[in-house]
Amino acid sequence: MKIYQQSLQLKARTRGFHIITSEIVYAMPQITEIKTGMLQVFIQHTSASLTINENADPTVRKDFEMFFNQNVPEDDPGYLHNDEGSDDMPAHLKAAMLGSSVMVPIRNGRLGLGTWQGVYLCEHRNYGGSRSLIITIWGE
Amino acid sequence: MKIYQQSLQLKARTRGFHIITSEIVYAMPQITEIKTGMLQVFIQHTSASLTINENADPTVRKDFEMFFNQNVPEDDPGYLHNDEGSDDMPAHLKAAMLGSSVMVPIRNGRLGLGTWQGVYLCEHRNYGGSRSLIITIWGE
Amino acid sequence: MKIYQQSLQLKARTRGFHIITSEIVYAMPQITEIKTGMLQVFIQHTSASLTINENADPTVRKDFEMFFNQNVPEDDPGYLHNDEGSDDMPAHLKAAMLGSSVMVPIRNGRLGLGTWQGVYLCEHRNYGGSRSLIITIWGE
Repeated sequence: MKIYQQSLQLKARTRGFHIITSEIVYAMPQITEIKTGMLQVFIQHTSASLTINENADPTVRKDFEMFFNQNVPEDDPGYLHNDEGSDDMPAHLKAAMLGSSVMVPIRNGRLGLGTWQGVYLCEHRNYGGSRSLIITIWGE
Repeated sequence: MKIYQQSLQLKARTRGFHIITSEIVYAMPQITEIKTGMLQVFIQHTSASLTINENADPTVRKDFEMFFNQNVPEDDPGYLHNDEGSDDMPAHLKAAMLGSSVMVPIRNGRLGLGTWQGVYLCEHRNYGGSRSLIITIWGE
Repeated sequence: MKIYQQSLQLKARTRGFHIITSEIVYAMPQITEIKTGMLQVFIQHTSASLTINENADPTVRKDFEMFFNQNVPEDDPGYLHNDEGSDDMPAHLKAAMLGSSVMVPIRNGRLGLGTWQGVYLCEHRNYGGSRSLIITIWGE
């Protein structure tokens, strides 16, 4: 069994949901060496997150941003942690709801994503800046 | 270290939460060969999801359906993505909140689930049809 | 490739969010043997969960408790499963939203967490008691 690990520094994105599948595949060309295996992508931040969802219609990503803003309001007077601005604590909560990593099986040298699946970077801050990922694959 | 991977086509389920632990174990008999390892189950869809929760009282699964319907409403006028019906965009959001994969350690040839834990298929569409899973295990 | 697995029995915690990163590292000293690998931590319960979030300001964990209590109310008359008290069904729902496992890459014998990331035990019951984890690492 082989294992490979790679850092990936993503360019700064606007607040919202962005498809990054091809950047991940490009950063880890050894995926093609693995017949049966697994890929994990980990984000080293607590105010941005990763998830897997619809890769075709851009309105899905807009609706994600709308829904999570509604569901995790910025102006809750109950927040104690608000030194870094009104988007700070909601970003931590959204990141926990969506998760800090995704895992996708590798089959015959390719990601085993369904037809409509893509990996999303979920940027929850107004100015989150560049984000650091660690990509790991293993298998044989 | 060994690794095994298997597709599993689930029959169509009604909208709601369904325990599929025994189907997973049945589809991957090689679990018994692994003394120390890991199982991952991945769903290749963006309107159904997987999670781990209570395996005994069926009212828990009914309450899951009730809660997620309340928390992710179908009639939000803010949705832009609604071509496939009112259950479409909520299904994507619920899938992101619950996740597209579960991971369970393998110990002495058996899944290391707690006494009350089972794997749920979370069907978020009214007519989601058959769902495709990829099961991967590795260990020694 | 090596693989190690270890049980960890956590002492009872108060309801809320608690950082347990150092307990995990202490329970699995073999992390230092792995140059490139992966750690998974699994919780064998359905009313407590694991997530990764901010490790510095304790008010973040207080805001997590406040937000999830608001978002998953205890007094919803729609719950069918309420034999074990008003904190029971909300605990199952919170656990599903946050997840039963976390995964962190291992790099050069250390966890590849970002500067501000820590592993949280999320205790959703008023008196959850001791909680059982299974820690698994693999790599080379």
